[in-house]
Amino acid sequence: MATKSSFTIVGKAARRVEGIEKVTGQAKFTVDLTIPGMLEGKVARSPYPHALVESIDTTRAEKLPGVVAVLTRADVKDINPYFGHCLRDRPLIALDRVRYVGEPVAAVAAVDALTAQEALSLVEVKYKELPVMATFDDSLTPGAPILHPDIQGEGAYHELKKLQAEIQTNVCHHEHIEEGDVGTGFAESDRIFEDVFEFPMVYHYTMEPHAAIAKVDANGITVWSSCAHPFVVRAELALIFEQPLSKVQVLVPYVGGAYGGKSYTKIEPLVVALARKAGQPVRLEQSVPESMLTNRRHSARVWIKTGVKRDGTLVAREAKVLLDTGAYADNGPRVARRAATRIHGPYRIGNYNIDALAVYTNTCPAGSFRSIGGPQSIWALESHMDIMAEQLGIDPLEFRLKNLLKRGDIVKSGAKPMDADLLSDLKQVAVKLDWKGSAKRRTGSGVGLAVGVTDSEAVPVSTAIVRLLADGSVVLMSGSTEVGQGTRTVLCQIAAEELSVALEKVTMHSTDTNVTPFDRSTGASRSTTVMGTAVRAAAADLRAQLIEIGAEILKAKPEQIVLKDGEIIAGEYRIGYTKALHTYFGMPGGELIGRGYCRPGGGMSPIYPLFWETGLGGADVEVDVETGEIKLNRFVGLADVGKAINPPQCEGQDEGAAMMGIGHTLFESLIYDKGQPLNPNLVDYRVPSFRNLPAVFDTILVENQDGPGPHGAKGMGETGIVSPAPAIGNALARATGVRIRELPLTPERVWRALRDKSSK
Amino acid sequence: MATKSSFTIVGKAARRVEGIEKVTGQAKFTVDLTIPGMLEGKVARSPYPHALVESIDTTRAEKLPGVVAVLTRADVKDINPYFGHCLRDRPLIALDRVRYVGEPVAAVAAVDALTAQEALSLVEVKYKELPVMATFDDSLTPGAPILHPDIQGEGAYHELKKLQAEIQTNVCHHEHIEEGDVGTGFAESDRIFEDVFEFPMVYHYTMEPHAAIAKVDANGITVWSSCAHPFVVRAELALIFEQPLSKVQVLVPYVGGAYGGKSYTKIEPLVVALARKAGQPVRLEQSVPESMLTNRRHSARVWIKTGVKRDGTLVAREAKVLLDTGAYADNGPRVARRAATRIHGPYRIGNYNIDALAVYTNTCPAGSFRSIGGPQSIWALESHMDIMAEQLGIDPLEFRLKNLLKRGDIVKSGAKPMDADLLSDLKQVAVKLDWKGSAKRRTGSGVGLAVGVTDSEAVPVSTAIVRLLADGSVVLMSGSTEVGQGTRTVLCQIAAEELSVALEKVTMHSTDTNVTPFDRSTGASRSTTVMGTAVRAAAADLRAQLIEIGAEILKAKPEQIVLKDGEIIAGEYRIGYTKALHTYFGMPGGELIGRGYCRPGGGMSPIYPLFWETGLGGADVEVDVETGEIKLNRFVGLADVGKAINPPQCEGQDEGAAMMGIGHTLFESLIYDKGQPLNPNLVDYRVPSFRNLPAVFDTILVENQDGPGPHGAKGMGETGIVSPAPAIGNALARATGVRIRELPLTPERVWRALRDKSSK
Repeated sequence: MATKSSFTIVGKAARRVEGIEKVTGQAKFTVDLTIPGMLEGKVARSPYPHALVESIDTTRAEKLPGVVAVLTRADVKDINPYFGHCLRDRPLIALDRVRYVGEPVAAVAAVDALTAQEALSLVEVKYKELPVMATFDDSLTPGAPILHPDIQGEGAYHELKKLQAEIQTNVCHHEHIEEGDVGTGFAESDRIFEDVFEFPMVYHYTMEPHAAIAKVDANGITVWSSCAHPFVVRAELALIFEQPLSKVQVLVPYVGGAYGGKSYTKIEPLVVALARKAGQPVRLEQSVPESMLTNRRHSARVWIKTGVKRDGTLVAREAKVLLDTGAYADNGPRVARRAATRIHGPYRIGNYNIDALAVYTNTCPAGSFRSIGGPQSIWALESHMDIMAEQLGIDPLEFRLKNLLKRGDIVKSGAKPMDADLLSDLKQVAVKLDWKGSAKRRTGSGVGLAVGVTDSEAVPVSTAIVRLLADGSVVLMSGSTEVGQGTRTVLCQIAAEELSVALEKVTMHSTDTNVTPFDRSTGASRSTTVMGTAVRAAAADLRAQLIEIGAEILKAKPEQIVLKDGEIIAGEYRIGYTKALHTYFGMPGGELIGRGYCRPGGGMSPIYPLFWETGLGGADVEVDVETGEIKLNRFVGLADVGKAINPPQCEGQDEGAAMMGIGHTLFESLIYDKGQPLNPNLVDYRVPSFRNLPAVFDTILVENQDGPGPHGAKGMGETGIVSPAPAIGNALARATGVRIRELPLTPERVWRALRDKSSK
Repeated sequence: MATKSSFTIVGKAARRVEGIEKVTGQAKFTVDLTIPGMLEGKVARSPYPHALVESIDTTRAEKLPGVVAVLTRADVKDINPYFGHCLRDRPLIALDRVRYVGEPVAAVAAVDALTAQEALSLVEVKYKELPVMATFDDSLTPGAPILHPDIQGEGAYHELKKLQAEIQTNVCHHEHIEEGDVGTGFAESDRIFEDVFEFPMVYHYTMEPHAAIAKVDANGITVWSSCAHPFVVRAELALIFEQPLSKVQVLVPYVGGAYGGKSYTKIEPLVVALARKAGQPVRLEQSVPESMLTNRRHSARVWIKTGVKRDGTLVAREAKVLLDTGAYADNGPRVARRAATRIHGPYRIGNYNIDALAVYTNTCPAGSFRSIGGPQSIWALESHMDIMAEQLGIDPLEFRLKNLLKRGDIVKSGAKPMDADLLSDLKQVAVKLDWKGSAKRRTGSGVGLAVGVTDSEAVPVSTAIVRLLADGSVVLMSGSTEVGQGTRTVLCQIAAEELSVALEKVTMHSTDTNVTPFDRSTGASRSTTVMGTAVRAAAADLRAQLIEIGAEILKAKPEQIVLKDGEIIAGEYRIGYTKALHTYFGMPGGELIGRGYCRPGGGMSPIYPLFWETGLGGADVEVDVETGEIKLNRFVGLADVGKAINPPQCEGQDEGAAMMGIGHTLFESLIYDKGQPLNPNLVDYRVPSFRNLPAVFDTILVENQDGPGPHGAKGMGETGIVSPAPAIGNALARATGVRIRELPLTPERVWRALRDKSSK
């Protein structure tokens, strides 16, 4: 498949294929579904961050009229109750002890939600409180109680070689990378800078909280879930309930936002176990507060130390990223792994020694969240860069340009060399920001830059089927989930382009593991690149069949055949796909089936990452010195997307990511006090609103058609989130001289810093 | 794919894959489904066999609380209201006139069935009666009113070249075949015999009457239907409602028997139109009386004239088969076509001139029914053969053996030569029946033989997908419908054998046109042969991938690779499929997809029929001369199945078909009086029960592995129905000397014949 130079459908602002359904309210999300005989589920959750579960008495709850089943640890003795794709450390319902506030202890299935809710109050649980490890400092204190002394081993589904649990400590995963010799590096440096940054716990605030419906019958397990990784869920359920994959069906209707919070397995094992006990389908529709206690982003403390030459050349770096992974591993090991690369950054630096630790605590489990490990590391790294530049007396733009990796430079050994033009990218952002003019700014007003580059580690395994029906309509069967990002539109565009049919001809089947063939997951910026490659391969397979059939019918050589607008053309002869199919099958029926695989070494390079995902940002801020409020005059985002299959969708993704970044930069923090969450609701937990939009919002898409995906596409949509915090933090510093090392940059925190500075 | 000589799974008595689901009552049929928001539909039907619909007033019905919609002809003006796969002559709801008692005139959707039923009585229809064509004699009377003066043209879906409507007459279809010169033939004959036989209207009496649920929303049309031809239904709905095929989804749960009565399109267009008007899903669950007025087998009058040499050599034949096709064409044209070949029979006869006419009348539309046109023609032909033998003084067995076609003989020009060993087959039946010993029988006791050979005209177009999942389980996606015949088991066996995995590893996805790829239909004895070929091709495609992957992993040549019991083996090295997939995809995920097509000239011979379907029968009867009751001491059935993929299922099919044949032979007749049905219910319409089983029931399966299907399988399951009537009629004649030319052979009819004979 050669790179195309002209496109009919790809690269255009195609309307969302599910748009009408959504704007007319006809689109179905999990909670819109009604499964015959469905009960409503509610979950009794631990009020303690750490406690032994001494007894559970469900007698009174079970007697409440309308209650069909109450699930406890007593009901999971015949199955494998632990799950976790990295480490199988998490029971689907509390067994001997609870490890965080909100952990499911019992679940009720009843004829309606109110009855189920009422029954929860009748479940009597006796706890014996245990010492609380509220933070990673507690957990890492020598002699601290071990949260997971008996981990069940590696998860069914992980692909990482190095996952490990140092089960004699509370370190869930320890990632270490090094190169060169930092000792020598620091010795050779003229200046050494050392900083510590803090990043808060944040919540995904998807419009739709977690929801799932489960049914268990003679055909096995069926789950409808608002999840982004249905094939992971299938594998985990198969392992837990000892079923073959073919007997576990996971269907994903539309999903109201995921952002990582619906990655891997969350509430599905619990709902299945409850439905199994009830003998009827059960729906569990979580509230926002419940979902805020289901998954979150890792809070982090990042210690970073860099040795630099007087001229600004980076020489050596040591860093340690401590990540609070909460009570269970979830995706913590992978977050640690990626945080390690991301603190290294997109700069030439010969000597480094980096550790990233995911540490268990008695808080809500942390997992995937748009650009895992990215915002934490890059907040630290890019703030640190500006601090060093200031101290060195070098312009931060020049300092970065001096050290940035050029296209083809080695980022880290064994990894793909840098595949973006970061210098040119950064210059574009600087121009949009009027960087040169910014020197003349008055106090309280300033601009800041940040460069974010991440390795999304998109696993390059997807498969797809494309079917051409007898009337020329096309059905795409792909397991990518539509979580609002527009993947259905993009994949349909890729198929339509390859098959030379109008986009309206293509329908994508909704995700159903019994129907849509295997996909690793929706996340890690992989759907356009990896699934797009599988879809394109499937369409190309179909295209090849059409060419062969056309050549036979038109008595031409395959190489003479051109496909265009639903027709097979050989010189002056042509035949429509519909008629060609009728001829081939000898009747007005039949269909052609194309299949496509994407795998390492087959359709996709086996070298990781598949692409470096770039997200550069520039912030122009105005600080109200009376209140400490930061206002954004402008935010500039830049993403190297390789090829934008659907440009407005790419812009939307990048701007949406930037808004999330602005959220954790200025507002968001999930606060715990000794293991007790203080603000798990959207009243006390503040997310950005429309009035927090930058006054000017620029999005630059860089397209060099140099990515590994279809037509040179790279993954995108994650990195818009990484640059706002350091860009705004740097702008604040340049505007006011105040450097804050802890997010969010709330008015109070800024005001206090300004006060402390002026009182010095 | 070479013929295999040893099998692991094929040819074995595999347990039904859906058996546990069915015997535990968990299997879902259409009426077991609940679709959220579903209304119940009921149909107001014409009480007149032929009338103009002058007016319809739904005002009162619409006002009844609980009624959501009332559908009439006024609601179908924006769509194409006619359907019919051969001729588009049938409106989904009565337009200007009604043509049979039971024709839908209005349909109500209400919150429950009782309300809908009550509303029917409030629909006020004014009719103006028209002359009734109660029989084909009426219809063919010169000057008779024309039932279909304005046929809409050919159906969307037919594949026949010669379909025609002689719309200036009431002949729906006229099939003519001839060869040689019958004039010369009769002139050269020593004896000429002429007979007329009558065959009654019969009903399929499936356990489950017709049922369908329809939903119309932003995604298009969804229909759950107890139908056997979902892809035909899809195509017709797409045409009626002007939708692409990809927007019409037809799902088929388990079907409680079909026997042709659920072939092609029946109630689905009406239910979709009603759901469209209601704006909510609607279920229509027909009663048995309603289904008895929905479809039936063609009644027939067969005139047959044969010229024979003194030594018994057949020389010439003329025949005319009149078929009462009822008010609409349905599959009548194809029934006529096949009746024509079937009256010709499996005998060498150089000169013939045969006409078969499907004639419109004002009765319930007739369509497909197990071995279309077969029982009618073969009842006549094989009775006629015995009559001639008796008159010639030749033993009926010897008479047949003298004239039967040998393997490779031409049956009719352009058709596939005879592919069965009919002489040997007939001898086997005679032996089982103790034919030689039967001469010594006392009066009232006798044996009779019949040879049935049919051209099922199975259309050779099917497609299939077979998927191998990461844990080694296999998913088969095939559009064949499970109507009780065991197709899922057989197709899973074929896939398991080809892939060398245990049958338990294979799951077949239920039929869903959005998921399971195209299949022409379930019927015409084609699922094992045609879909079996597609499934085997899909599995072989997957197998080839496994071999390639295995060769790469085991560093062997593809030709060294053997697949066995889920392992890829090269000499002493081996790797399980699961591990091979993990290696190939680089993770514990991924899947392999095999696709298979069967089409004329691709996997299947383009010469029709694909196989001659043989059904020989022998009856040993005891006639109670006091009551006229015929008792079956023994029935011997023989089917040449090529290769029995699942022998007990083949036996069950053949015996089930024979029991249906015994039904129309001894009991069944749907009686009309001037267009009014007299017995459309299972009280007045008698079907055979267990006590009517033959005392001894022998089933012989002939297996020469010489069929066109997988491993040499031929189609079967239809011809068991063709031989009982003539075999029993012939036995009755030999036992009593009484020859009856009209079915069923009820005690009354036999008793009267015995009386008439003795009074001669």
